[in-house]
Amino acid sequence: MSEITRVVLDAMGGDHSPGEMVIGAVNAVKEKKDLFVYIVGKSKGIKEVLEKQEYPKEQIEVVEAPDEITCHDAPVTAIRTMKNSSMVVGLKMVKEGKADGFVSPGNSGAILVGGQVLVGRMKGIERAPLAPIVPTMDGVSLLIDCGANVDARPSHLVQFAKMGSIYMEHVVGVKNPRVGIVNIGAEEEKGNALVKETFPLLKECSGINFIGSVEARDFPYGAVDVAVTEAFVGNVMLKTLEGLSSGLVKKIKEGLTATPVSTIGAALVKPQLKKTLKTFDATEYGGAPLLGLNGLVVKIHGNATRKEVKNALFQVETFKKQEINEKIKDYLLHESKEKEEK
Amino acid sequence: MSEITRVVLDAMGGDHSPGEMVIGAVNAVKEKKDLFVYIVGKSKGIKEVLEKQEYPKEQIEVVEAPDEITCHDAPVTAIRTMKNSSMVVGLKMVKEGKADGFVSPGNSGAILVGGQVLVGRMKGIERAPLAPIVPTMDGVSLLIDCGANVDARPSHLVQFAKMGSIYMEHVVGVKNPRVGIVNIGAEEEKGNALVKETFPLLKECSGINFIGSVEARDFPYGAVDVAVTEAFVGNVMLKTLEGLSSGLVKKIKEGLTATPVSTIGAALVKPQLKKTLKTFDATEYGGAPLLGLNGLVVKIHGNATRKEVKNALFQVETFKKQEINEKIKDYLLHESKEKEEK
Repeated sequence: MSEITRVVLDAMGGDHSPGEMVIGAVNAVKEKKDLFVYIVGKSKGIKEVLEKQEYPKEQIEVVEAPDEITCHDAPVTAIRTMKNSSMVVGLKMVKEGKADGFVSPGNSGAILVGGQVLVGRMKGIERAPLAPIVPTMDGVSLLIDCGANVDARPSHLVQFAKMGSIYMEHVVGVKNPRVGIVNIGAEEEKGNALVKETFPLLKECSGINFIGSVEARDFPYGAVDVAVTEAFVGNVMLKTLEGLSSGLVKKIKEGLTATPVSTIGAALVKPQLKKTLKTFDATEYGGAPLLGLNGLVVKIHGNATRKEVKNALFQVETFKKQEINEKIKDYLLHESKEKEEK
Repeated sequence: MSEITRVVLDAMGGDHSPGEMVIGAVNAVKEKKDLFVYIVGKSKGIKEVLEKQEYPKEQIEVVEAPDEITCHDAPVTAIRTMKNSSMVVGLKMVKEGKADGFVSPGNSGAILVGGQVLVGRMKGIERAPLAPIVPTMDGVSLLIDCGANVDARPSHLVQFAKMGSIYMEHVVGVKNPRVGIVNIGAEEEKGNALVKETFPLLKECSGINFIGSVEARDFPYGAVDVAVTEAFVGNVMLKTLEGLSSGLVKKIKEGLTATPVSTIGAALVKPQLKKTLKTFDATEYGGAPLLGLNGLVVKIHGNATRKEVKNALFQVETFKKQEINEKIKDYLLHESKEKEEK
């Protein structure tokens, strides 16, 4: 029998909490025998949903946490003071080695802070980047870092490139992923101070497939597999993509049903349109991993439903089976050896 | 008779040069009696197009410039060495006071460098930002700065906010425009070092309608009229918007004609879809102005056609008639007085 992966699922803090969280967990354990899920949160509500489901009881355990960190709570204060919140209780279980990973739809800032403070960074990792999988015209790409650690240094970006490469290759399954640095032009001399300093470091970096600068315009076309950038820029890029695509789709749908004739047409194009828009659905890849920690922390969308929850749980399993943290450690070890030899 | 506005049009460097440039100029002078256009570039080709047009001859003059700066030329070197290029010749005419503004579809970097070096910044202006008008779900917004002046300081961003406000109010016609700073969260304490330093300065800035942070996600919905940001971030935002919208539209069009049934539907929705997508067409606002110079420099798209050219020429006229630079000067004068009084 293969090794069990244990995941803590934060049932609170999402738009569809706890219902969709619980059903996502149920669907996950029904599909995978070697998965064990701790569902953390207000146990009364969780159990009410669970009781209505059929599933292998030995693969799910409910852990009581009476408090809930909401999107209105200030991250640092929340993590420091709300000891009985589902997030703090859950992250501590990863810290203590009771679980391999943590999945939450809750307050992003609190997840980022909690991941770093409670679970802790791996030795040698300077920063833990948030690296969402972003759908493109050509598949998916990893955008690293979109977190809250703004004003990064070149050495941080180099680590992001390495961790992102490993993740993309071994969790998402892209061979020899193309790594690019987000820039405002294709030429090496372009960019701000951070990019100009980082570019040569990435160029001489062994073990990654660095292809140079990537312009934001080409990112949605899948120009790179791993786009490396500082968190402020990454966050702006990600939010721009999310805002525009939801806005455009809304506007197009409105336009399609504006007249009686177009409404008939809309009915005829609907199945194809749905199929097209589905290619931009990243929920099948799970959530955004926070990399470089002593365990995997995954942020899923606030409005995540059962499918994204299930896939995020599987994501932790793949992360563990592929020994991603061991691979990151090996890489860093290799790096420090290289430095010593120089 | 009202005062004449004189504009230099760079006929070279665009995908449709010189044909669409020339026809744009012809259409412009046919509509406005008080507009005079110098068309600069390889005069043989320009005249060949002009000869086939009917227009008031006294409103257009062709200026010979045998060289052309292409998108492959390094901006600084090109501006310094290609004295006979249409861009250098044209920008110098603005510098010498022969024209009020300059419109070009050419090499963006060269326009930015040339504007600053040849036309020159107004006294008191620290940086000249590139401020494109971006279509949103709700109209248009100004995104300032999207240029090449990366790594800005807080005082630069404050000037951008002021100049952007004046432009949006008096050229685009938005009353009391809402100004926001691009940020990764809505709260004042969010952001990188630059944003945190700039936020309080904008808050206490008199004469602008500062409404706080704007998240990139809300920008496409028209959350602000003027979005202030450092050029690297602005450029990434702009390019992300351009890349994703063109990609999405392409993908949707492909999807619509994927099956026989959807193709019939597509024919029925086509007029409405066209109308919807037209709301995202910013060409009617002309090009992206480079603000804070001794004259208006406007960058139009490399693939600009006659309509965008015409509207960019009108844009220079409005800029002059509305005395934008005088308004900017007044503001700065007011600002230095305020500082003295403190």
